[in-house]
Amino acid sequence: MFSQSDFVHMERALALAVRGLYTTDPNPRVGCVLVKDGVVIGEGFTQPAGFDHAEIQAMKDARARGNDLRGATAYVTLEPCSHFGRTPPCANALIEAKVGRVIAAMEDPNPQVSGRGLAMLRDAGIDVRCGLLANEARELNIGFVSRMTRKRPWVRVKVAATLDGRTGLPSGESQWITGEAARADGHAWRARASAILTGIGTVKEDDPRMTVRAIDTPRQPKRVLIDSRLDASPLSQIFVGAPTLVFCSVLDASNEERAEQLRARGAEIVALGNAHGKVDLPAMLAELAARGVNELHVEAGYKLNGSLMREGCVDELLLYMAPALLGTNSLGMIDIAAPDKLDWRTRLAFHAVDRIGGDLRILARVVAAQDD
Amino acid sequence: MFSQSDFVHMERALALAVRGLYTTDPNPRVGCVLVKDGVVIGEGFTQPAGFDHAEIQAMKDARARGNDLRGATAYVTLEPCSHFGRTPPCANALIEAKVGRVIAAMEDPNPQVSGRGLAMLRDAGIDVRCGLLANEARELNIGFVSRMTRKRPWVRVKVAATLDGRTGLPSGESQWITGEAARADGHAWRARASAILTGIGTVKEDDPRMTVRAIDTPRQPKRVLIDSRLDASPLSQIFVGAPTLVFCSVLDASNEERAEQLRARGAEIVALGNAHGKVDLPAMLAELAARGVNELHVEAGYKLNGSLMREGCVDELLLYMAPALLGTNSLGMIDIAAPDKLDWRTRLAFHAVDRIGGDLRILARVVAAQDD
Repeated sequence: MFSQSDFVHMERALALAVRGLYTTDPNPRVGCVLVKDGVVIGEGFTQPAGFDHAEIQAMKDARARGNDLRGATAYVTLEPCSHFGRTPPCANALIEAKVGRVIAAMEDPNPQVSGRGLAMLRDAGIDVRCGLLANEARELNIGFVSRMTRKRPWVRVKVAATLDGRTGLPSGESQWITGEAARADGHAWRARASAILTGIGTVKEDDPRMTVRAIDTPRQPKRVLIDSRLDASPLSQIFVGAPTLVFCSVLDASNEERAEQLRARGAEIVALGNAHGKVDLPAMLAELAARGVNELHVEAGYKLNGSLMREGCVDELLLYMAPALLGTNSLGMIDIAAPDKLDWRTRLAFHAVDRIGGDLRILARVVAAQDD
Repeated sequence: MFSQSDFVHMERALALAVRGLYTTDPNPRVGCVLVKDGVVIGEGFTQPAGFDHAEIQAMKDARARGNDLRGATAYVTLEPCSHFGRTPPCANALIEAKVGRVIAAMEDPNPQVSGRGLAMLRDAGIDVRCGLLANEARELNIGFVSRMTRKRPWVRVKVAATLDGRTGLPSGESQWITGEAARADGHAWRARASAILTGIGTVKEDDPRMTVRAIDTPRQPKRVLIDSRLDASPLSQIFVGAPTLVFCSVLDASNEERAEQLRARGAEIVALGNAHGKVDLPAMLAELAARGVNELHVEAGYKLNGSLMREGCVDELLLYMAPALLGTNSLGMIDIAAPDKLDWRTRLAFHAVDRIGGDLRILARVVAAQDD
């Protein structure tokens, strides 16, 4: 059992972890609070990749404040690492500091290392417990957990639509359906993603930059473009700034010149075609996971949204709903066909619903068929 | 200014008024609390039409408990009536009881009588104030206010749809998109309405009863059917039970026999055609208001929903949104055409958003063009 003060300290550790929301990528966001005799003596959260993990930051903070770590309790939102990566293992550092107790919110989601850090601590005689506010910790690193356990990113599809489910006029006009607050909020979701995905249709119609601008962030997500035939103009805004990865269906003599033009703009081209001459979307997700993409933020048109949905490549809808109607002949949000029976409809579950300015923000998660 | 205890007593009066939600029709829902020396000595709320108003109920309650009303404060959610209707005026009764103070949430919305009840009380030397929790009081009687000030009911269109704005499969299959909790909640909204409106399309396809069943109510709303050509089968469920009013475009020799068949089922037929051979919807609203309809609850198909919307006959959407997708070729919710410009879209404003079971209930109000 955990005490009331255990909850308080772990909630603080989670709040610290959130400070790394835009910056820890591809590492998970982790927070750590060190407590001795009921007093917080040190705090930390994951620094950008290659720099200190949360535990090391917290220990440095405690020492800088003149505290002795021996016998302290460490609250960490994720199991301390046990391996040498870009930094030495945190479990070792906690053992060397002779902390008396470690409370972790959750184990490392990587099934091949999960539990090893906690075991190291236990072997060193430290009192170790795990599972305090585990759901909250998992939500914070939903993309990292997805990459570790499913070898694919957590795919979040952002849509701005009216109450009648329309995203633009028949002419394509779609700016702006939602208000400024919703648009700024959308940039915050871009900022936390490892990568932002769009399609050639959106690039041709809207020529978006797909960068984070409405809020401050020191890190721009990678940009990913699905362009089966390499139709994108090298002058497209998506090639300006942060690195862009382009998936096409095939790379051969027929499109080598266009590929070279895009490479000259800093793009990396990857050919991953399926039998229909389109980009193999599940394979693309595996490739992105291999490249360290935790959360994949999708802002695309209703056709690519539909392809992703049909191929089981969507985990969550981030739907900004404006209190308006656009009419029956306007553009839909996700191009999927009606099922033969109502029972076979695509099912989701509401995860969170909030008012953002005059609009509504709905997070709805796709319910896997086996969950039915 | 009102004191904290004034707010407490008026909130209690509003809570009492809610007890008449299903029963006071066509009268407004009113609550009354009598307070003397800081103590509540009597409470009441509007009884069914022809029986006691809230003030009379509260005075009877106070006397039954052995209280002297002289010098008491009456909190009423609506200005006491000043005219002889089916019951004697409440203002007279309060004056005769020698209450010392009357606090009303709002004036009578009928511009022709508004303020007369309060003036009568003032003329009798009673300390009168008005405007405490006026918005809340107005919301509770939004239909009565609409009928009094606009000579039309408050029109609430109920829709059950998926996240992509679809209400049924191309085949018409639509039962059930939302869960049981949402359907029961829908019946509570039916129960508070004066009348439930549907169209011939829905009657032919679903043959609904359009009665309140999922919750207890002593009163069934009147049912209204729009059937321009009198195509409804006399065996339709909508003619079973509570009285049904049928609007058609014309009554003449061509459909007199069908009209007679429907009358034999207890229906009343009213011809109100427009130049297009359809029912004149704004004229129908005026007719319903003249018949005492405060809140009109619409459960119809997307075509009639669209006609009502296009003709400015919708005040509010009551949208139950299921966390699912039905696909681009499924039925929409409101058959209106896309505007030429995005700026000309039909605008609403979110009034309330709540989770009902696994679904979402969205109340969104149409923003009149002049409000832009």
